[in-house]
Amino acid sequence: MDKRIAEWVRREGVVVGPEFLRVDSFLNHRIAPEFVALAGQALADHFAHRGVQVVLTAEAAGNVIAYEVARRLGASALYAKKGRAVTMSQPITRRVPSPTKGGEVELSVSRHYLRPGERVLVVDDFLFRGLTSAALAEAAQEAGAELVGFGFVIEKCFSGGRELLARFGVPIVSLAAIERLDPASGEIVFRE
Amino acid sequence: MDKRIAEWVRREGVVVGPEFLRVDSFLNHRIAPEFVALAGQALADHFAHRGVQVVLTAEAAGNVIAYEVARRLGASALYAKKGRAVTMSQPITRRVPSPTKGGEVELSVSRHYLRPGERVLVVDDFLFRGLTSAALAEAAQEAGAELVGFGFVIEKCFSGGRELLARFGVPIVSLAAIERLDPASGEIVFRE
Repeated sequence: MDKRIAEWVRREGVVVGPEFLRVDSFLNHRIAPEFVALAGQALADHFAHRGVQVVLTAEAAGNVIAYEVARRLGASALYAKKGRAVTMSQPITRRVPSPTKGGEVELSVSRHYLRPGERVLVVDDFLFRGLTSAALAEAAQEAGAELVGFGFVIEKCFSGGRELLARFGVPIVSLAAIERLDPASGEIVFRE
Repeated sequence: MDKRIAEWVRREGVVVGPEFLRVDSFLNHRIAPEFVALAGQALADHFAHRGVQVVLTAEAAGNVIAYEVARRLGASALYAKKGRAVTMSQPITRRVPSPTKGGEVELSVSRHYLRPGERVLVVDDFLFRGLTSAALAEAAQEAGAELVGFGFVIEKCFSGGRELLARFGVPIVSLAAIERLDPASGEIVFRE
């Protein structure tokens, strides 16, 4: 839990439904660089001294957070590409359901950029059901890389994401953990 | 022209066809934070003192560059969303052909985040045919915002992008301008 991040989410997040928090004004559509820099630094601090070499995310929502974490850790960022990876050489591919757009989406990373033994941190803006992050972690393992953890800006604690990712046996860090969203009052209840 | 950027592109870019340069290893799939930081700073330097308030790009390729430019200019970044913007309020939408994936893609920005009079810089990784950037510039104008320029990391000079964007009457900056790609030799010929 990072108080500054949680305070920002409380102030600018808009509760649209019991599972849906709109963060369009600072994290998703319009980007507040100060917020991303703050979140990137906080996640990098959590995983400093873990020898992270690759910060892996799924485009496009995770890109800037992954980039900021990578920049501060002296690592590379790696964005799993969405859709058919026709021009990608040696792709590792996973299909995951898309919670926001419906249907399934194909995520691919190239083996060229995920090497055996490399230390990989999976990062994303939200931990919701955890399916995308689990797919990324599996892709890292398929490449023979070593998963060192998961880092998220915002966790929705009511969606089973943390439980799904527990099987990987690595630290799962979120900066703002949301217990409950109340569409009636607009309240965001954080886990302390 | 930025010598360090051009040198990086020359060293790591892979000529795949007469119009296609692969930058997977540092700008597109795997991201080298030092490269993005360098490019972001160089573009920010070009548009410093122009009062830029919003750095506008199209997700996902432009996201980190736009973010870095925005961060260094003290501006917001704004990512036009791809695909049907069902949850977006007050969208401004443009359809543009997708050069990499074929077909057309719909780009949307919300009027909430692009206000009349705001000073907007359009940024992207590549200037190729210029259709995406022209669509973003038109969206900014439709919102009543003031377009102050275009900034690109890599320009393909042979594709008419600069000519297409000239009608907006604002500065067009690229950090590495490519005159010709030679798939036979792998050579990248830069415009000096």
